[in-house]
Amino acid sequence: MAVGKESWPEIFPVAGVSLGVAAAGIKYPNRHDIVVIDICDGATVAGVFTQNAFCAEPVKVARAHLKQSGTRLLVINSGNANACTGAAGYEAAIKTCQAAADLKQVAPESVLPFSTGVIGELLPADKLINALPAALGACREENWLTAAKAIMTTDTRPKGASKQVEVGGDIISITGIAKGAGMINPNMGTMLGYVATDAAIAQNILEKISLECAQKSFNRITIDGDTSTNDSCILIATGAKASNQITDSHSEEYLTIKEAILEVYQSLALQIVEDGEGATKCVEVYVRGGASAQESLDVAYAIAHSPLVKTAMFASDPNWGRIVAAIGYAGIQDLNVESVRVWLDDVLLVEKGGRASSYTEEAGQTVVSKERYQIQVDLARGDFDEVIWTTDLSHEYIRINAEYRS
Amino acid sequence: MAVGKESWPEIFPVAGVSLGVAAAGIKYPNRHDIVVIDICDGATVAGVFTQNAFCAEPVKVARAHLKQSGTRLLVINSGNANACTGAAGYEAAIKTCQAAADLKQVAPESVLPFSTGVIGELLPADKLINALPAALGACREENWLTAAKAIMTTDTRPKGASKQVEVGGDIISITGIAKGAGMINPNMGTMLGYVATDAAIAQNILEKISLECAQKSFNRITIDGDTSTNDSCILIATGAKASNQITDSHSEEYLTIKEAILEVYQSLALQIVEDGEGATKCVEVYVRGGASAQESLDVAYAIAHSPLVKTAMFASDPNWGRIVAAIGYAGIQDLNVESVRVWLDDVLLVEKGGRASSYTEEAGQTVVSKERYQIQVDLARGDFDEVIWTTDLSHEYIRINAEYRS
Repeated sequence: MAVGKESWPEIFPVAGVSLGVAAAGIKYPNRHDIVVIDICDGATVAGVFTQNAFCAEPVKVARAHLKQSGTRLLVINSGNANACTGAAGYEAAIKTCQAAADLKQVAPESVLPFSTGVIGELLPADKLINALPAALGACREENWLTAAKAIMTTDTRPKGASKQVEVGGDIISITGIAKGAGMINPNMGTMLGYVATDAAIAQNILEKISLECAQKSFNRITIDGDTSTNDSCILIATGAKASNQITDSHSEEYLTIKEAILEVYQSLALQIVEDGEGATKCVEVYVRGGASAQESLDVAYAIAHSPLVKTAMFASDPNWGRIVAAIGYAGIQDLNVESVRVWLDDVLLVEKGGRASSYTEEAGQTVVSKERYQIQVDLARGDFDEVIWTTDLSHEYIRINAEYRS
Repeated sequence: MAVGKESWPEIFPVAGVSLGVAAAGIKYPNRHDIVVIDICDGATVAGVFTQNAFCAEPVKVARAHLKQSGTRLLVINSGNANACTGAAGYEAAIKTCQAAADLKQVAPESVLPFSTGVIGELLPADKLINALPAALGACREENWLTAAKAIMTTDTRPKGASKQVEVGGDIISITGIAKGAGMINPNMGTMLGYVATDAAIAQNILEKISLECAQKSFNRITIDGDTSTNDSCILIATGAKASNQITDSHSEEYLTIKEAILEVYQSLALQIVEDGEGATKCVEVYVRGGASAQESLDVAYAIAHSPLVKTAMFASDPNWGRIVAAIGYAGIQDLNVESVRVWLDDVLLVEKGGRASSYTEEAGQTVVSKERYQIQVDLARGDFDEVIWTTDLSHEYIRINAEYRS
């Protein structure tokens, strides 16, 4: 199940980035389960990683390697998360980097490893290493769709986004792929994202963009509130199509490229929500009027994580009582409930502490019967707003997550 | 669906407390939907109420009236929560108190109103008021079961607990009833609890006991993480069987009565969990070794609220990866994952950052196949421990909460 129809966008290859896949036989035979992303010399690379204390071994290695400059290769496998595998798991990740570095004649620290799949089983590094030459040999700038398919686990669709934009007179491409369907199919969770552009962006500026764009996209989606041990999102700027490097976060070029990258991030993030396990709805929760960003976010997550609100979404039930109760327990100090207003799209649902007098069941029903709609809350306390995207909670979610045996 | 078999305990009536029910026709005809609890003169009464900012109108009234001494009557209705009903709802609650006070010849502030049922519809106060004489006339010390049934909404069973204990030479009874199945069936949620003892307890001491016992019982159960607008729990000490009043929180009498009251509270709380909507499991989450009570609680709730952990419970799946991931994202600063250990009952599941070497799938499977078991976590950071009780997340939960139309 998923929201909307599957579609694959027009992809603009990114000069300086090529992708290759191969079948390493990690979990299943003859399935593409390894992806390498080859990056030209001189590119800048930044990333954000899971905040889970039980982070996976490849996350530790990738974080450490990324701190040293000169990333040239990403090695991603599906079928095994290499998480909660201790020292042996760390060794397996290091060994894979070393083998890839040897083949490419670069330093091991230039290689970043990523894994997704079953938790708690040691990564079969030898299988990965045996498949590396084939994956490297298959590298092409056009291989984004092939790569998007190879990193899928419980995803029902490959996820990609791409756009072109003019930056300082150059036509720049921004292209990305992602996987993830919530931290969800138990030991098969994980969100992974890889976005590249052929703009030239200074390292510190790229890190700033990477963080801000992840905050407003992957960090604003929630399917079940669970966070995987392996979540990672990498941003690459090759500079291969750029006349000038962006070094000033106040320049017009900066704003243009950042907005374009954010669009790609948000498109990928929304595709993850739409492919959420068991999802039949994709709902935007927009909270404004908060006295701080945190309290707007707290209210948004209280709504998005409430199982009662989520089952009402599944049932296409405009259940204002559940939304109001979630706002009420979000922990906002001295909330004046008389001032809070709630809308379903543009239909006013709640005002003055109760159901809006103008509200009709028919108008609310029309909105929540759609596949995509917005719940908007005005807290009337300040100027901070936040938006997150979520899914409903369906029979299918329970089926997928209860029937799957790790 | 519910955990275990239905049973009603032996009830010890509490001298000075009598209960009566009647059919007011609030939502359905000919159904007991109003309960009055008549309290003798000179009793002390304390209570805890929902923290939800959108608290119901009767909660506002009960809180205010309780601050004035001399509570003589509780009036409880099911079928309508009188929540999010604004000034008209407040008036309806006040009017009900006034009518009951007139009948009983006491001050209106001596009456506390409670409501549970649909949110957002005005309480039909006149129906309630018309039924008050019948309810008052039906008051008997033995009516605990009749009252427990009349306050049920989505509950599948009446909930009661009772015990006797010797305090300072007197045989003291403690008896209570509760309703609630999670904030759950949407607009029919709400936890209500009423516990009475014929011990004599000074007001400030009773307030302390009320708060501490609620913290360790009703505030430590979670079915879906949602909090109702109407939750209330009232503790009554009539003094009708006591030679001396308990005034010292360091006395042996205090400790004896507090422990007995806590037992009744915990029994009622557990009955609510076992009757959680769609529940097939009742799981105790015990977290010890926290550096603070809050962090032990944060970890316990992260586990208990994780939809992935809850669906694994439903599937009788000893899925350690999901438990570990929940611990990892509970927000504990500088958690050393190498030191964390996790047990299912007495089966060690996780140590040294991964699956325990002694663990076998068979041993884990045996534990989680039971209806009741414990997940124990040792954070190895300090001496604080916390325990909460929760249920699984089942198909039945989705069915109940998606198919119910408010």
